[in-house]
Amino acid sequence: MNESLASLETIAEEQCLDLLIRHQLGRIAVLAGDQPLIFPVNYAYGDRVIAFRTGAGTKLATAPNTRVAFEIDDYDPATGVGWSVVVQGIAYEITDAIDRQSQLARRLRVHPLAPGVRDRWIGIHPTDISGRRFRATV
Amino acid sequence: MNESLASLETIAEEQCLDLLIRHQLGRIAVLAGDQPLIFPVNYAYGDRVIAFRTGAGTKLATAPNTRVAFEIDDYDPATGVGWSVVVQGIAYEITDAIDRQSQLARRLRVHPLAPGVRDRWIGIHPTDISGRRFRATV
Repeated sequence: MNESLASLETIAEEQCLDLLIRHQLGRIAVLAGDQPLIFPVNYAYGDRVIAFRTGAGTKLATAPNTRVAFEIDDYDPATGVGWSVVVQGIAYEITDAIDRQSQLARRLRVHPLAPGVRDRWIGIHPTDISGRRFRATV
Repeated sequence: MNESLASLETIAEEQCLDLLIRHQLGRIAVLAGDQPLIFPVNYAYGDRVIAFRTGAGTKLATAPNTRVAFEIDDYDPATGVGWSVVVQGIAYEITDAIDRQSQLARRLRVHPLAPGVRDRWIGIHPTDISGRRFRATV
């Protein structure tokens, strides 16, 4: 096996933030009772808040005021290079929040992928951000 | 807004299984204390088991014998069409399991994306499989 094709490196936090800024589709993990769930969400990142819009449903019922995980990743089968950024944080409903950070978050451009009324805003405040980049071994 | 560009439909379980069979890269959500975490994993699906390989680490420390979520998704920005399949299930370490289902799972072709010793097998036994397909509203 070629050593150069089996590398795994940490992505520095600054670069993780860069990736969060440049992407729009991520996944949030929430806890419903003792059952973790994963939802894809269209998000925007700014001012240390990951913001997305949602409607009535499981995300709104379970995420606010709890610890959540948020993840983005990409993988290029042609080169075998992939990366992922995982955020641990606490989710808050910021629909009506008047703190400046929440007000700024609600100005972010977030285009929900799925249709439907999505007039509630959720913001994830990161407590830990980590990333890694890898090359496939095959 | 064009009605046809704002559809959201459920994907039938049989088609969800088809998508699970045809894809290789998913994400598992596990719980570390009260903190959900998400990890991308290269997996294979067969005989109603989602199998992946791992080494010593958080996934092996937290996943076995607990409820987990597993997700695959795809989105084509050109057409605005996306889909996701979410599996709820219970994870088991099946490295040495001698039941037939686990033995079959260990014969699945799983190529871990990241390098490193990954000699432990984890199998997720689904308790719920759901999928949805959507077209972006923008």
